[in-house]
Amino acid sequence: MSAAPIEFWFEFASNYSYLSVMRIEDCAARRGVQVRWKPFLLGPIFRSFGWQTSPFVLQKAKGDYVWQDMVRQCRKYDLAWTRPSGFPRSSLLPSRVALVGAEQDWIGAYCRRVMSINFGEDREIDTNKVVTEVLTALGLPARQIIDEAQSEANKLRLRQQTETAARRGIFGAPMFFVGDDMFWGNDRLDDALDHCVQAPA
Amino acid sequence: MSAAPIEFWFEFASNYSYLSVMRIEDCAARRGVQVRWKPFLLGPIFRSFGWQTSPFVLQKAKGDYVWQDMVRQCRKYDLAWTRPSGFPRSSLLPSRVALVGAEQDWIGAYCRRVMSINFGEDREIDTNKVVTEVLTALGLPARQIIDEAQSEANKLRLRQQTETAARRGIFGAPMFFVGDDMFWGNDRLDDALDHCVQAPA
Repeated sequence: MSAAPIEFWFEFASNYSYLSVMRIEDCAARRGVQVRWKPFLLGPIFRSFGWQTSPFVLQKAKGDYVWQDMVRQCRKYDLAWTRPSGFPRSSLLPSRVALVGAEQDWIGAYCRRVMSINFGEDREIDTNKVVTEVLTALGLPARQIIDEAQSEANKLRLRQQTETAARRGIFGAPMFFVGDDMFWGNDRLDDALDHCVQAPA
Repeated sequence: MSAAPIEFWFEFASNYSYLSVMRIEDCAARRGVQVRWKPFLLGPIFRSFGWQTSPFVLQKAKGDYVWQDMVRQCRKYDLAWTRPSGFPRSSLLPSRVALVGAEQDWIGAYCRRVMSINFGEDREIDTNKVVTEVLTALGLPARQIIDEAQSEANKLRLRQQTETAARRGIFGAPMFFVGDDMFWGNDRLDDALDHCVQAPA
């Protein structure tokens, strides 16, 4: 009897997604849980609520808190942290590439590297140059993967994935699904994984 | 060398405050940390953001999630749970009484009982009858305490406490302070208490 898989919905611009991207493969492997990577864009979802940007920008008090919290959370998980000078960062190309690689064995390493560039090194992530750098460092054919990521079919897939997120009630990131059970935020990653083991596929 | 105290800012209408009210005395005692109870009203703070009610009501997707999450959280902490038929409930009188009792030895038991009525038994809490019932069950002079709670001086104190909350950047509940370090949400209670021990008074 095997554990249920976990669906991991994340957005490269989201600082709490950063924590989960860095942690999920190790945490899941320890419990024998398979991770299904689901990159999506939060922007269209926030706009559907009438928000033009992240609530961490729109609500100043909450934003001020979040940057305090991230310092402590990154210390707790032993992760690099630099408050991004641009937030939320555009994440379109890296998200399209993540969709291409979602079922490839390089997806975890790719996502961790993109997140580290955004939240560890405070660099932009939505450029051909950076994505090429990341893919090449992983020994992958960057040009070919980026071409596929920028194809009309893949652009449409990312829009559809984001629409699916909205339809499933996703209102923030990271979000985890175990079957129909939804768990919000890096703080629920361990609970969600425990649920995978208790509610096997 | 003793641990720093924890300031516990909470609102009886807040479901995540319920979790912390039920847990904090035990969790703090295990670490030798003193709890400073800070009842306040979220309503005026939400209104200052332009919101007329809880974000769990204003954002339907988030609200739907929160009631799923509460079922699991209460199971995890072994707490009674009934989704309140009225949310957020008016909490004015119980909050005024909590302010009267904030430094008394009955504050923890009183707050747990009020919270249990709201979130365990799905009953209103902002009535003379219910508050009298709670105080009397604790062997306290209910009439006298309620009279003090309803005095102009104490009403003013609660307004001032809520203004202090806003000034300190509190945007939700529960909120914990250890010195100037702010921790938001029941999910941060253990981190905040650990911080009390690491950063002694």
